[in-house]
Amino acid sequence: MDPSKIFGPRKTVEQVEEGTDLAPKFDAQGLIPAVTTDFDSGELLMHGYMNAEALALTITTGEAHYFSRSRQAIWHKGATSGLTQKIRELKIDDDQDCVWLRVDVAGGASCHVGYRSCFYRTVPSGAGVSGDSPLTLEFTEHEKVFDPEVVYPGVENPTKL
Amino acid sequence: MDPSKIFGPRKTVEQVEEGTDLAPKFDAQGLIPAVTTDFDSGELLMHGYMNAEALALTITTGEAHYFSRSRQAIWHKGATSGLTQKIRELKIDDDQDCVWLRVDVAGGASCHVGYRSCFYRTVPSGAGVSGDSPLTLEFTEHEKVFDPEVVYPGVENPTKL
Repeated sequence: MDPSKIFGPRKTVEQVEEGTDLAPKFDAQGLIPAVTTDFDSGELLMHGYMNAEALALTITTGEAHYFSRSRQAIWHKGATSGLTQKIRELKIDDDQDCVWLRVDVAGGASCHVGYRSCFYRTVPSGAGVSGDSPLTLEFTEHEKVFDPEVVYPGVENPTKL
Repeated sequence: MDPSKIFGPRKTVEQVEEGTDLAPKFDAQGLIPAVTTDFDSGELLMHGYMNAEALALTITTGEAHYFSRSRQAIWHKGATSGLTQKIRELKIDDDQDCVWLRVDVAGGASCHVGYRSCFYRTVPSGAGVSGDSPLTLEFTEHEKVFDPEVVYPGVENPTKL
């Protein structure tokens, strides 16, 4: 498919912010950030990126597609793990440089480490943080939904230092 | 303050993903994306960026600070509008290249256009989208919380085409 058929041109700030034309902005790498939350719980599941093709595939198929920066390829989420994300609602922000996916997750997990959400640790903040010493994260998920070694056998971990 | 005092080094993938050291990754521009949701409703309010100083200020003050890419400056959210964001919970993702802020918003709005959330329009998706013609957004917020002309008099609109 040709993504340019469903995306309009960005003409004015007013059109982009106050209008009804879908006119997404992709950055210098051709990407737009995508924020994915669980439709029922509201929990933030993951933060990824899409290129024009991935966004168009997400829109037309109703399932989340991202662009993997580590693999430099379109990534149909769940194609390997079975943990697909079905779009319940798709939203775009004021200047149309970010999209929000509200999804149902098949299998209940979205994180390659095996947790339900990628955001399974909290950072201390506010009163009580001195700012003078390294901070310690606290786990908020204590059990993995799946074992990555079983679900992704032989697949390289995408995390980069 | 010196942000390096509260951030640890990134040593191994296991340390970053499975450990308790706060070791955030900043991109080539020195930035980390920040996803901000309303603590009570779970609604996605905005997507922004932080540099190391903005993240450290967010952690130590308990109020959201971002890095404005358009102004290339630290941005204490609400300093102009009064619509500050108080951190109720701060989380970081598996590879520590994204943070999630769960906040209470003073004044009830987070979008410079005047809406409660920056994500006030939906994109059609799934069955019924042909993929052959430009798509039309649908507004989900119909009334602005504030008038940007009143709250930001003489301030340039940050949206770029």
